[in-house]
Amino acid sequence: MNPIEKLSKIFGNFPGIGPRQARRFVYFLLNDRRGVAEELRESLAQLKEKVDRCKFCGRFFATEQKKKICAICADPARDESTLLVVARDFDLEAIEKSGTYRGRYFVIGGSIPLLSETPTKFIRSRELLAEVERLLKKGLKEVILAMNASPEGENTAAYLEKILKKLLSHDLKITTLGRGLSSGMELEYADPLTIRAAIAGRQSQI
Amino acid sequence: MNPIEKLSKIFGNFPGIGPRQARRFVYFLLNDRRGVAEELRESLAQLKEKVDRCKFCGRFFATEQKKKICAICADPARDESTLLVVARDFDLEAIEKSGTYRGRYFVIGGSIPLLSETPTKFIRSRELLAEVERLLKKGLKEVILAMNASPEGENTAAYLEKILKKLLSHDLKITTLGRGLSSGMELEYADPLTIRAAIAGRQSQI
Amino acid sequence: MNPIEKLSKIFGNFPGIGPRQARRFVYFLLNDRRGVAEELRESLAQLKEKVDRCKFCGRFFATEQKKKICAICADPARDESTLLVVARDFDLEAIEKSGTYRGRYFVIGGSIPLLSETPTKFIRSRELLAEVERLLKKGLKEVILAMNASPEGENTAAYLEKILKKLLSHDLKITTLGRGLSSGMELEYADPLTIRAAIAGRQSQI
Amino acid sequence: MNPIEKLSKIFGNFPGIGPRQARRFVYFLLNDRRGVAEELRESLAQLKEKVDRCKFCGRFFATEQKKKICAICADPARDESTLLVVARDFDLEAIEKSGTYRGRYFVIGGSIPLLSETPTKFIRSRELLAEVERLLKKGLKEVILAMNASPEGENTAAYLEKILKKLLSHDLKITTLGRGLSSGMELEYADPLTIRAAIAGRQSQI
Repeated sequence: MNPIEKLSKIFGNFPGIGPRQARRFVYFLLNDRRGVAEELRESLAQLKEKVDRCKFCGRFFATEQKKKICAICADPARDESTLLVVARDFDLEAIEKSGTYRGRYFVIGGSIPLLSETPTKFIRSRELLAEVERLLKKGLKEVILAMNASPEGENTAAYLEKILKKLLSHDLKITTLGRGLSSGMELEYADPLTIRAAIAGRQSQI
Repeated sequence: MNPIEKLSKIFGNFPGIGPRQARRFVYFLLNDRRGVAEELRESLAQLKEKVDRCKFCGRFFATEQKKKICAICADPARDESTLLVVARDFDLEAIEKSGTYRGRYFVIGGSIPLLSETPTKFIRSRELLAEVERLLKKGLKEVILAMNASPEGENTAAYLEKILKKLLSHDLKITTLGRGLSSGMELEYADPLTIRAAIAGRQSQI
Repeated sequence: MNPIEKLSKIFGNFPGIGPRQARRFVYFLLNDRRGVAEELRESLAQLKEKVDRCKFCGRFFATEQKKKICAICADPARDESTLLVVARDFDLEAIEKSGTYRGRYFVIGGSIPLLSETPTKFIRSRELLAEVERLLKKGLKEVILAMNASPEGENTAAYLEKILKKLLSHDLKITTLGRGLSSGMELEYADPLTIRAAIAGRQSQI
Repeated sequence: MNPIEKLSKIFGNFPGIGPRQARRFVYFLLNDRRGVAEELRESLAQLKEKVDRCKFCGRFFATEQKKKICAICADPARDESTLLVVARDFDLEAIEKSGTYRGRYFVIGGSIPLLSETPTKFIRSRELLAEVERLLKKGLKEVILAMNASPEGENTAAYLEKILKKLLSHDLKITTLGRGLSSGMELEYADPLTIRAAIAGRQSQI
C-alpha cells in the first residue's frame, strides 16, 4: 500500500472518522507548511515516553520525575470514603469538570458488551478489586458505579456489582448514578424508561 | 390579503412551521382531490363542538353524551392519593404511554416564562388549587410537579410549590421529577448540572 | 374515531408532518385563545370559493371579479416566445422570485413516477398541449422543461418531450434546465453525475 | 504543556476536529493495544520520505524509484489538449473517480480568499503558468478552471483567468465548470443564482 493510502487507513480507524475525512487529514498534513506532521510525530513519541496509567486510579496522566501517582490520587484533600468508577478517562474528565465530586476515581478502561462471555477482557477488573481492597483499609464506604445509561453501561455495572459483592465481607455500599430527566429535557420527548425513572426517583421539595 | 397568502400565514403560526412549509400546506390542499380541505373544515367544527376540558384534570377530551369528566378522572381504579401536574396535554400523554403512573393528573396548560410578573396569566393555577382542595377530601397525599427540565419548567415548578404551600394546612407532600442521566445518555456528553443531579441522586444497589 | 384523533390523522397526511407534530397542531388549536381554529375554517372556505386554476398556465391564483386568468398570463410585458413548464406551483414561485425569467409558465401539477404505465394520471398533459397550441399562434419558439433534477423529474421531462414532439409540425425548440454545480457546492462533495454535467456543460470565459 | 494536552492541541488543528474529538483521539491512542500510535509514527515518516508533488501536475503521489511524475501525467493515453485546474488533491480525486475526464490536471494547492491582496500566497500560480507553457508546446487547447461554486472558488477562477490571459499570445480557450441544478436537486429549494444559471445554461433536446 502506498503511504497516502496507508496513512488514510490509519486515520480511518480513529473514532468517528470515515474514509473521506481520513483522506482530508492526509492532505492536510501534506499541504501544511508549519511542520504539523513533524510536531505530531514528536508528540506521539512523548505520549509513549511520558504518559502512563496512574498506579491507583488507572487513568492516563503525564508523569513527571517518575511519579507513579496522578494529581487526584496524590491529593490528600480528596475524600477517601467514596470511589467513583468510570469506563474511560474522558468520563472522569467530564465529572471532574462538573466540580461536583470530591472523592476518588477508578478508570476500568472500557465497558462489557452484552452477552459477552469474557467480561474481564474488556475492563481492568483485577486492578479495580485491588484498589478497592487498598482503599477499604483507608476508610472506603461507598463505590459509585458511574457507567453510561446504555445497555452496555448497565451490563458493565451489573458485572462490577457482582464481583464487588463476592469479594466483600466488609460493610461497603454500592451505588449507581441517578436516572431521570437530564438538563433541558422535555417530558414530551422523554422515553418511557426515563419517565419511569423520573417518577420513581422523584424528590421531595421541603 | 388574498386567500392563498392568508392561509399560508395561518399555517405559518402553527408550532414548528415556517413560511415555506406553510405554503406547501396550502398547495397540498389546493392540489388534493380527495377532499382533505373539506374534511379538515368538518373536523375543526367537531373539535369546537365535541372537545372540552375535563372538569377535574383540565385536559382536552372528546365529550360524549355531555359528560364533563374524562376517562382517567372517571376511572375508579386510579389512585387518588397522588396528583401529577403537567404543563400540557401531550406531557400527560407521554406519561400515560409510559405505563408507569396510576394516579391522577392535572394539566395547567402552559409554563411560566422566567421573570414573568403575571404568572397566573400562563397557567390555570386557580383551577389547580380547586382540584387539590377537592382531592384532599378524598385522601390526596402527594402532588408531583412534572415539569420539563428547562429553566421555564423549573420556574413553573417553583411558583406552583409556593402557591401550594401557602394554601395548605394539610399534610401534603410536594415532589418534583428525578433528575439524572436519561436513557441512553453517555457521561461524556452529560452537562455539569446533569452530572451533579446523577451523583446527588445515586441509588443504592441491594 | 374521536375528534382529537381524527384531526391528528388529517394533519398527519400533510406533507412532512408525522404523528407527533400532527398532535401538537391539534393541541395548539385547542389551547389557542385567539380564534386560530375559526380563522382557519374561514380561510379554508375562502380557498374553495376564491382560488382557482388560471385558465392558461394552470397555476392557482386568487380570482377577483371572476377573472379566469392570472396576473402573469394577463401581463402583456411577458415574453410569449418561451414557455417554462414546472411540476408545481411552488416551483413557479421559486423561479419567479429569482427574477431571471420573463416568459410564460405552465404548471403540469405533478410528476410521473418511474415505470408508471399511466403517466397522464399524474400530470395535466392535455391542458399543456392545448396551451402550447394556443401560444404557437402567438409566436412561441421554445418550451423549457424545468423539472427537478431527480429520477422522477427526468422521467417527466422525457415524457413531455415525447408528447410535445409528436404533436409538432412546428419549429419548436425543447430545452431542459442546465445541470452542474449549484451555488455553494464544493467539488469534493459533488456526485459523479453532477461532475460529468459540470464538465460537459463548461462555459467559455471571454 | 503536558503530552496529553499537547497532542490534543495538535489534533484540534486537524480539519473539522474540535477539542472534544481531539481528546478522544488521544485516549484512543493511549487505550489502544494494537500499536496504532507506533504505526502512525512510521506512516508519518514514510509520508515525508516517499510522497512528493508531481513535477507536472503538482499533486501528491507516492514516489517509487525516484520517479518525479505521477501515474496520470505519465499516462500517454491521457488527452494533452485539455488541462483541468483544481484547488486541491481531493478535488482531483473526485473528478477522477467520476470517470468523465480523460485530459490532464493541475493542482494549485488552495484558493484565494476574497479581497486578498497577495493572491499568489495561496496558490501555486507560477507553477501553473510553467505547466501551461509546457503543455502548449504539446498541443494544449483548453484550460478548464474547476473551482468550487463558492465566492472563494469564483475569486480564484477570476484571478487564474486574468493571469492566463495576460500570458497568452496563443489560441487557448479558458472555460469554467457548468452551473445549474446538481443531481437530485429540487427547484423548490434552489437558490436564485442556481436557477439563473440553470435557465441560462438550458440545453436543447435533440
